[in-house]
Amino acid sequence: MKKLVLAYSGGLDTSYCIKHLTEEGYEVHAVSVNTGGFDPQETQQMEEKALALGAASYHNIDAVQTFYHKVVKYLIYGNVLKNNTYPLSVSAERIVQAVEIISFAQRIGALYIAHGSTGAGNDQVRFDMIFQTLAPQIGIITPIRDQGLSREAEIEYLQSKGVSYSWEKAKYSINQGLWGTSVGGAETLTSHQPLPESAYPSQLMETAPTKIELGFKNGEPVSLNGETDSPVAIIQKLQKLASKYAIGRDIHVGDTIIGIKGRVGFEAAAPMIIIKAHHLLEKHTLSKWQQYQKEQQGNFYGMLLHEGQYLDPVMRNLEAFLDDTQKTVEGTVHIALHPYRFELEGIASEHDLMNASFGSYGEENKGWSAQEAKGFIKILSNAGTIYNHVNNNS
Amino acid sequence: MKKLVLAYSGGLDTSYCIKHLTEEGYEVHAVSVNTGGFDPQETQQMEEKALALGAASYHNIDAVQTFYHKVVKYLIYGNVLKNNTYPLSVSAERIVQAVEIISFAQRIGALYIAHGSTGAGNDQVRFDMIFQTLAPQIGIITPIRDQGLSREAEIEYLQSKGVSYSWEKAKYSINQGLWGTSVGGAETLTSHQPLPESAYPSQLMETAPTKIELGFKNGEPVSLNGETDSPVAIIQKLQKLASKYAIGRDIHVGDTIIGIKGRVGFEAAAPMIIIKAHHLLEKHTLSKWQQYQKEQQGNFYGMLLHEGQYLDPVMRNLEAFLDDTQKTVEGTVHIALHPYRFELEGIASEHDLMNASFGSYGEENKGWSAQEAKGFIKILSNAGTIYNHVNNNS
Amino acid sequence: MKKLVLAYSGGLDTSYCIKHLTEEGYEVHAVSVNTGGFDPQETQQMEEKALALGAASYHNIDAVQTFYHKVVKYLIYGNVLKNNTYPLSVSAERIVQAVEIISFAQRIGALYIAHGSTGAGNDQVRFDMIFQTLAPQIGIITPIRDQGLSREAEIEYLQSKGVSYSWEKAKYSINQGLWGTSVGGAETLTSHQPLPESAYPSQLMETAPTKIELGFKNGEPVSLNGETDSPVAIIQKLQKLASKYAIGRDIHVGDTIIGIKGRVGFEAAAPMIIIKAHHLLEKHTLSKWQQYQKEQQGNFYGMLLHEGQYLDPVMRNLEAFLDDTQKTVEGTVHIALHPYRFELEGIASEHDLMNASFGSYGEENKGWSAQEAKGFIKILSNAGTIYNHVNNNS
Amino acid sequence: MKKLVLAYSGGLDTSYCIKHLTEEGYEVHAVSVNTGGFDPQETQQMEEKALALGAASYHNIDAVQTFYHKVVKYLIYGNVLKNNTYPLSVSAERIVQAVEIISFAQRIGALYIAHGSTGAGNDQVRFDMIFQTLAPQIGIITPIRDQGLSREAEIEYLQSKGVSYSWEKAKYSINQGLWGTSVGGAETLTSHQPLPESAYPSQLMETAPTKIELGFKNGEPVSLNGETDSPVAIIQKLQKLASKYAIGRDIHVGDTIIGIKGRVGFEAAAPMIIIKAHHLLEKHTLSKWQQYQKEQQGNFYGMLLHEGQYLDPVMRNLEAFLDDTQKTVEGTVHIALHPYRFELEGIASEHDLMNASFGSYGEENKGWSAQEAKGFIKILSNAGTIYNHVNNNS
Repeated sequence: MKKLVLAYSGGLDTSYCIKHLTEEGYEVHAVSVNTGGFDPQETQQMEEKALALGAASYHNIDAVQTFYHKVVKYLIYGNVLKNNTYPLSVSAERIVQAVEIISFAQRIGALYIAHGSTGAGNDQVRFDMIFQTLAPQIGIITPIRDQGLSREAEIEYLQSKGVSYSWEKAKYSINQGLWGTSVGGAETLTSHQPLPESAYPSQLMETAPTKIELGFKNGEPVSLNGETDSPVAIIQKLQKLASKYAIGRDIHVGDTIIGIKGRVGFEAAAPMIIIKAHHLLEKHTLSKWQQYQKEQQGNFYGMLLHEGQYLDPVMRNLEAFLDDTQKTVEGTVHIALHPYRFELEGIASEHDLMNASFGSYGEENKGWSAQEAKGFIKILSNAGTIYNHVNNNS
Repeated sequence: MKKLVLAYSGGLDTSYCIKHLTEEGYEVHAVSVNTGGFDPQETQQMEEKALALGAASYHNIDAVQTFYHKVVKYLIYGNVLKNNTYPLSVSAERIVQAVEIISFAQRIGALYIAHGSTGAGNDQVRFDMIFQTLAPQIGIITPIRDQGLSREAEIEYLQSKGVSYSWEKAKYSINQGLWGTSVGGAETLTSHQPLPESAYPSQLMETAPTKIELGFKNGEPVSLNGETDSPVAIIQKLQKLASKYAIGRDIHVGDTIIGIKGRVGFEAAAPMIIIKAHHLLEKHTLSKWQQYQKEQQGNFYGMLLHEGQYLDPVMRNLEAFLDDTQKTVEGTVHIALHPYRFELEGIASEHDLMNASFGSYGEENKGWSAQEAKGFIKILSNAGTIYNHVNNNS
Repeated sequence: MKKLVLAYSGGLDTSYCIKHLTEEGYEVHAVSVNTGGFDPQETQQMEEKALALGAASYHNIDAVQTFYHKVVKYLIYGNVLKNNTYPLSVSAERIVQAVEIISFAQRIGALYIAHGSTGAGNDQVRFDMIFQTLAPQIGIITPIRDQGLSREAEIEYLQSKGVSYSWEKAKYSINQGLWGTSVGGAETLTSHQPLPESAYPSQLMETAPTKIELGFKNGEPVSLNGETDSPVAIIQKLQKLASKYAIGRDIHVGDTIIGIKGRVGFEAAAPMIIIKAHHLLEKHTLSKWQQYQKEQQGNFYGMLLHEGQYLDPVMRNLEAFLDDTQKTVEGTVHIALHPYRFELEGIASEHDLMNASFGSYGEENKGWSAQEAKGFIKILSNAGTIYNHVNNNS
Repeated sequence: MKKLVLAYSGGLDTSYCIKHLTEEGYEVHAVSVNTGGFDPQETQQMEEKALALGAASYHNIDAVQTFYHKVVKYLIYGNVLKNNTYPLSVSAERIVQAVEIISFAQRIGALYIAHGSTGAGNDQVRFDMIFQTLAPQIGIITPIRDQGLSREAEIEYLQSKGVSYSWEKAKYSINQGLWGTSVGGAETLTSHQPLPESAYPSQLMETAPTKIELGFKNGEPVSLNGETDSPVAIIQKLQKLASKYAIGRDIHVGDTIIGIKGRVGFEAAAPMIIIKAHHLLEKHTLSKWQQYQKEQQGNFYGMLLHEGQYLDPVMRNLEAFLDDTQKTVEGTVHIALHPYRFELEGIASEHDLMNASFGSYGEENKGWSAQEAKGFIKILSNAGTIYNHVNNNS
C-alpha cells in the first residue's frame, strides 16, 4: 500500500483528508506537531478521531522545545516584529511543524506526504517548500487545495462514508502556540473592522496593575520575578500571568508570499512583553552599530522566516550573527502590567553602558573637556563645511 | 561693538549668557525660535527679561510651519521612531532652530553666535555643526560649556550684577514643541526608575474611550474627524484631544552623538498616533519592497537627523525618495482612544491593495488555480532543493 | 480572427511561432523592439521573413532612447554591476522590450501576446510578469516553452509547411544591445571553461594605448573628448572606440529568477568604462553617506530589475532617489585605453570635494588644530572606552 | 623615569620622536610591528638607529600571522574592497599595529605611548582610538601632530643634537605590508594625475601569460597550483608571482575619518586576485540571499575597519556572521595572469550549485514543467497586477 504521512490537526479539512486518502488507497499515518497549542486531552481526542476515520496510525510530536531553540530564540534575539507589529506567531510554528513532519515521513519510509492547506495562503508555501527542499523524492498531496471543496461538500462526503461528527464552524478561526495565537474572522477579511473583544481567546480577568521582573541571560528569558526556569517555562508562565490583562492584542496587515495582502488578528502577551523587554535591555548593553545591524538583520530574518525560507543557508549565517550579539544581553527588566498594556520601567544590568563614571547625558562631562567637545564637533563638521563651501558659495 | 546672536530660551543658562556676554563687550541679540512650544505670553516675558538683562534686541522667530515642512513631514513619511520608541521630538526641533538662528545671524551681519548648551549633550553638536557648516566664518561662543558653572554660581553672578529674578529649578526639565515634549529628571539619570505620573505635563483628563478618524493625503495628515485642515493644525488639534488620554508616554534610551548612553522621558500623543496610523495606511497601500526600503531609509534618516547631520546632502536624496513613496498613501484611519493607549481599528482607502476581487487571504484564490500555486512553490523551492542536494546528500 | 502580437527576433524559435500560430488560426502581428542591436538592413530582412512566414504585419519599434532614459540612465546613476561584474545588458533590454510590446498589443486591440522564450530562463519571467501586470486580460501564448521542441523538430515542421530557410545554429548565441552584448556557448554551460577569444563579437583591433576624456553632467555621459552629444550617441561612439581594445569582457555567474545558477559571457566596453568613470566622479563629488546609500540602493535596484520587477512601485521611488543624488555629479574623467583594459587616471570637477583649501590628506591640516583633532578622537572613542570599561575590566 | 612606548618605523618622524622624547626625560622603548613589510635586515637597521638615538630598548613584534587571522581573513571572507577599489591595505595594518603596541605597553608597565602621526590623516585616529579604548589610563603623546614641524626643522633639531643620518625624502611615500602597498606622491595630492609607472615598487617583469590555480577551503586561500600551504604563505607566494605582471595597481579616492577626501595609489596583486577569485567561488557556492547579505555586511565591516572602529563589538558579531558563511566556500579557481591584469577563467567545487542535474540556464528545465513555470510567474505577478489594477485603472 502507498504509505502516506498526513499533517493532521483534528479539524474538518484534515479529517476529510484522512477519509478521502484512505478511500483512494493510501495508508494514512496522521501526525500532529505540538508547538505549544495542544494539551494531552486534545491530542487524545485527535488520536481517537484519526483512527476512527481510518488512519493507520496517529502520532503527536512534541516540538515545543525544538520550536523555542530553533526559531523563537532568534525571534527574541532579533526583536522580530513583522511590519513592526506581529511576532510571527503562526509563520514560525509552520516551519517547525513542516520540518518535524518531513523528518517523520523519512523515518517511516513514506512515499507521500499530505497537508490540508488551501491554495490561497502562506501555509501551503511553507509546507511545500520545506518538504520539497528536504525530500524532493516524496510526493506532495493536497486534497483541499486541489479539489477546492466547500465545508458543506466535505461534511456531506464524510456523512456519505458514515462519519457523523458534528463540525460546527467556529465564528473565529484560532491558531494557538507557544509564541502567540492568531485570530481570523469576518472582520479580518475587511480593511476597516477591528475584532470584537469576544473574538480573543484570552479575556481581561485582572484590572489591578502589577509589577514583574523579567531576567535575561545571553539574550534568553531565564527568570520571572526572581525564579529561574527554562525559557519555554518562562514564556508559558508569563503568558498565563499577562494574558489576564488582555495584553498583546493587535491586527497584523502584511504581504503574503503569494502577493496579496493579508490581515489577521492575534494575541501574544508573553511574546510582546519579552521582545520589548529584551529590546530595552539591548539599548542599554549594545553599541550603536550593534543595534543598527541587528535591526536590519532581525527584520530580514523575520521576512525570510515569514516567507518560508527557513532552510536558506543565509538563515544559519544570520543566526550565528544574532547568537554572537547576545553575550552581554543580561540583566533584569522591570515591567508594570496594566489592563491591555504594559510599561517598561527600567533595567538593571552589569553590562549597562549607561555608566555614571563617564558623565551623565546633558548634565556632566566627567570624561572630557569643553575644548575636546569643541574639537570633536569641529572635525565632525569638516565634510559638511567643505561640501557647502564647494557647492553653495561658488 | 562685537555683534552677537544668542540662541535664547528665557531660562537661567541663556539669561546668564546675556548678562555675561554683554559685560564682555558683545552686542547681544537674543533670538528664540518657536517650533511649537511657545505661546505669545511666554515670548513677551522672554522679551522683557532679555532686554532687562542687557540684550540689544530680542526676536522670536515663528518656525512652526518650517519645522513641519522641512522635518516633521519626513518623520511621518519615514514612520521614524528612534530605537523603535522615540519620535525624535527634541532632536528634530534643534535642527530647525539652528538653521533659523544662523540665518538670522547672517541677515544682521553678526560676527558671533552663542548658545547655552553644556558639553555633555547632543544639542551642542547639533548647534555647532549647523553653524559651522553654513557659516564657518561666524565665531561660536558657549559660556556654559566653557565655564562649566553650577546653577548656583550663575545665580550668584546675576545677583552680583543686580539681576534678581527667582530661578527656582523645576523638578523636571521640560522641552515642549510641535512634535512632542521631552521630560528629564532625577529618574532618567538612572537606568531603572520610571518617571512618576506627575512628571508628565499632560495628565489623564478623560477616561471614556472615543473613536476618531484621521485622514491622510500624499502621506500627510489632512483631516481629523472629517474636518480638513493644515497638517500643523491637525497635529495640534489631535494633540489637544489625545493628550487628555495621557497617550504617547514612554522613555527613550539611546546613543548620544558623543558616545554615551542617554535616557529621557517624553510624551507625544499626536506624533505616536499619526506615525502608527500612517504606517498602517502604508501597509495597505504600498508594495512589500516599498515597505522594506522605507523601513531602512526611514531609520537611517532618523539616525542622521538625531546626530545633527541634517545638512548632509544624503538627507535631501532620502527626502526625494520618501516624497516619491507617498503618492498612494491616502485614506482614512480609524482609531480608538483609551486612557494611556490607542487602538488602530482599520483603514479605508481607494488605494487599498487588500482587494477582494483577487481573492482573500487563506480563504479563496479567485485569481489563480491550485496548479498555478503548486508551480509557483515548486520553482520557488528550486534554489533550496539544489543547495540541499549538493551539500547534504554527498 | 484571433488577433495576436508576437515578440519576434527573426531567429528560428520566433519564426516557428509565426508559422505555427498562423496555422492555429491566429492573426499574427510580428513586432521587434530595437534596444540598440539592430541595423536597418537586419530589420528589413526580419520584415521580409515575417511576412513570408504568414505574419499579418511586421513592426519594428525603435526603443533605443526609451531604453536609455527609462533604464540605462539609472544603471549609470546606481553604478549597477550585478554581482560586482555584469552591467545587466540583457536583463535591462528585456524590460523595455516587454513594455513596448504590450503597449503595442493594447494599441492594436490584440487578444493574445506570444513570445519565444523557453521554460528554463529569466526572459520568460520578465516577459510574462510585465504582460500580466500591465494587461492581465491579454492571453499569453508561448509555443516554445509549452511544446519543448528541439531545433530539429522546429526546422522539420517549417519544412513540412514549405518554409526552407537555412537555420544553421551559430556556435555562440549572441544578444546585442546598447548596454552590451551577451555571449552564450558550450563553455558557459560549464563552471570552469572561459570563452575563447573568437567567441566575442568585438576583436582586438588596436594595441597602441590612447587617452580619452569623458564628460558628465547630472550624472549622464554628455561628452567624449570634448565633443558634446546625447548620452545615447556618447555610449555608441565610446563603444565603437573602446571595443577595438577588446575592453569590458567578462563572465557573469548569477542567480536566476527560477532558482538555478546561470553563467554567461559578455562584452560591454562602453558600459564598463562609463560606470567606472561615473563612480570615480562620485567618489570626488558625493558625501560618504550618499555613497553608502547609493551603493545599497543601486545594488537593490539592479537586483529587482534583473528579476523582472521593473514595475514594482519601489523602482520609481529608487529612481527619484537616484535622480536627486546626481546634481553635483559633473565633470570630466580622464581614462587611458589599453588592450583588454582601461585605467581611470583622474577627474576634474567644479564640485570636487577634494579641496586643497581645507588641507591635504596626511599632509597638512589647514582647517583645524592638533588640539581639535585630539578632542575629536577622544570623544569618538567614548563609546568604545565605556564598553571596554564595563565589559572587560569587571 | 617616565616609561614610554613609541610606535617606531625608522623614518625621520619617529626618529625625531626618540630624540625629542628622550631629551624631555622619557624612557623611550621603540617598538615596530611587522605586518608583512619588513625583512630582518631592515629591523636590524631600525634597532641600531633607535638605540643610537637614545631609545632605552627596541623591539620588533612579528604580527603577520595575527594580522592575517584577525583581519585579512575577514577582508577575504567579505570580499572587502573599499569604494569597490581598495583592499584597505594600510587601514587594516594600523589596527593590528595599534593593538600590538598598546598590549606591549601594558606588559612593560608604560605610562605613556607615543606615535608619529600628523593631525591630517586617518592613522592618528586609528592609533588614538585603540589606545584610549584599551588603556585609557595610558597617556598619548604625539610630537609630530602637536608641534607641526617641517622635515627641515626635524632634521635641524637632530643635527643640533649631533645626529647626522641622511634623511633624503623619497619621491614617493611607500607603505608595504602583507595585504598590499600604498603609494603616495605629488600626483595623489591632485584629483587628476595618475601615478607614473616608476612610482610603483613592483615593475612589470613578465609578459608571457600564465595560468594558475588557487585553492580555497572554508573561504581561506590554502593552495597555489596544487601545493597547499598556510594562507599567509599562499598570499606571499602569489604576491611574488603576480607582482611580476604589475597586477593590482589602482588609485583609491575615499572619505577620511576626519571628513576630507583622500587619494592614494596602491599595488596589491595578491589581494586583488584572492578577493576576486574568492568572490567568484562564492557566486557558485552561496545562495542569492547569502550573497546579498554578505555584500552589505562586508562593505559595512570594511567601512568600520577603515574608520578605526575595529574594537566596536559589532565587528566581532559580523566576524561570526562571515565565519559562518564560509562553510561551503571550497574549491579551485582557475586564473590567467597577463601584464597589468588577470582573468578569472572558472572554478571547480564540490559545492558548486550550478548543477546540471537540475537543468541548464536557458537550455533545459529538467526539474520542472512549462506549466509549473507559468504558475510560478502568474503568482509572482500577483502583487504587481493588483497594484496596477487598484492604482492605474481607476
